[in-house]
Amino acid sequence: MDALVDSARRRESVLVVGLDPIPDRLPPEIADRRLPEHESVREFCLNVLETVEPEVAAIKLQAAYFERLGPAGMEVYAEVSRSAAELNLPVIADVKRGDIGSVAAAYAEAHLKTYGARCVTVNPYMGEDAVIPFLEEVRHLGEGGGVFVLIATSNPSAEKLQNASDPPLFEIAAKLVAELGQQGKHGYPDCGGVVGATRPEAGRRVRELLPEAIFLVPGYGAQGGGAREVRSLLNSEGSGVLVNSSRAITYAHEKYGSSYPKAIREAAREAKQELRSIGARM
Amino acid sequence: MDALVDSARRRESVLVVGLDPIPDRLPPEIADRRLPEHESVREFCLNVLETVEPEVAAIKLQAAYFERLGPAGMEVYAEVSRSAAELNLPVIADVKRGDIGSVAAAYAEAHLKTYGARCVTVNPYMGEDAVIPFLEEVRHLGEGGGVFVLIATSNPSAEKLQNASDPPLFEIAAKLVAELGQQGKHGYPDCGGVVGATRPEAGRRVRELLPEAIFLVPGYGAQGGGAREVRSLLNSEGSGVLVNSSRAITYAHEKYGSSYPKAIREAAREAKQELRSIGARM
Repeated sequence: MDALVDSARRRESVLVVGLDPIPDRLPPEIADRRLPEHESVREFCLNVLETVEPEVAAIKLQAAYFERLGPAGMEVYAEVSRSAAELNLPVIADVKRGDIGSVAAAYAEAHLKTYGARCVTVNPYMGEDAVIPFLEEVRHLGEGGGVFVLIATSNPSAEKLQNASDPPLFEIAAKLVAELGQQGKHGYPDCGGVVGATRPEAGRRVRELLPEAIFLVPGYGAQGGGAREVRSLLNSEGSGVLVNSSRAITYAHEKYGSSYPKAIREAAREAKQELRSIGARM
Repeated sequence: MDALVDSARRRESVLVVGLDPIPDRLPPEIADRRLPEHESVREFCLNVLETVEPEVAAIKLQAAYFERLGPAGMEVYAEVSRSAAELNLPVIADVKRGDIGSVAAAYAEAHLKTYGARCVTVNPYMGEDAVIPFLEEVRHLGEGGGVFVLIATSNPSAEKLQNASDPPLFEIAAKLVAELGQQGKHGYPDCGGVVGATRPEAGRRVRELLPEAIFLVPGYGAQGGGAREVRSLLNSEGSGVLVNSSRAITYAHEKYGSSYPKAIREAAREAKQELRSIGARM
């Protein structure tokens, strides 16, 4: 996770902006030109990237929205990743892949090497076989990357599965993360977790089990999680959290009505400041 | 699942052959020509597809091995899907995607529409939000497709997570599948499960919970599951199971030493016959 920590400190921000390029939510400046879909997505993503770069620790790419556009979408995904690298901004590939052994290794190669992301999100349903190949690729590349394992997610139906047993699934996943991580130069393990801002009780329990890990926190902004919920996820030193906001920032033009780069810049600055005001830092 | 059932009956086979195009296991006839990687993969996949087509109910594409080759790999993935469609052979996109809401809908669009697979595998860690969008896409397309949700997987570390709680995770996932499926014209629900051939005890319990669902059964052949284990997964009428074999068939040249199409054809016929001999049918 060292690359993320370096970036968060350099930009004094624990904010991650997520790119979910949904065609029918693109701003009118782009939509009205009726370009081929992957061209619209390309322009939007590159502009958002450049606009938010000074305010964020990392950019998160939601692979699904590129994948749905076929091979041309994956060309855009590659180009956005390259542009982020040129800006020295780490990419978190939000892929949530969940396969095992050599299949997981092929996914790790795809996103961490072929497409050049620093970090990936991983789904632990299949156990450690699903996580280790990603950690091995991160360690092999030696570029300070990391893996965020889904632990307690922020969506409405998550609890029905993740809280339905004794012990709850999210605790079993947290213990898996604790076993697999190796400490980097800043003291953070290279295996972190995805812990939603909408389930503070589960979040506190996960923090007990993983006192040192970095949490990637979705559900901030659009999904209803706020600064107070984020505070309960911080470690004892007020750090260890990267907070993702996707649509509340990248579609800020829908709320503010101004030109989209301006709306996005303001929304990103506001979120960054709000997170600083609760004392979250890296 | 109707398209799979139709195909299984037409070809009198419950065998699914999985395509895991691993570059350093390609047969010498291809490897020795030192083509660009995606060209070798393309040739191998198209030849395997044509060779096994008369013997199998469906072909399963392991997306990771195409994804690792970047956009050119996804072009090959698209071409293999198209070729299967021309042979009237359903494709199961083994993607194990596990995201929610509109993200899951984007993955569903990618694999079921853009790339044209009939069925997908899905990871249920995030609950029903992760499964419903795939079922909605299947139903919207109306082409007899289906969704296989990971329930009890065949890999070594699966039990550590899937059997570690009360009730075990695999039972919670099986109940989710029971809730979400809708019956098709042949009486099978459109939501099935991935149930490994290596965990017969879990398998029997899942069959109790899902008496009517189709199981996609990995772990046959190379992973140590055999005909006896498959028998314990059949429903009360001796059906409801599609058995996947990937590397034991597609890399049969490593064992038999003959030309690879011949080795593959023989291995596929043998597996098909073995499954018929235990009475598995659709």
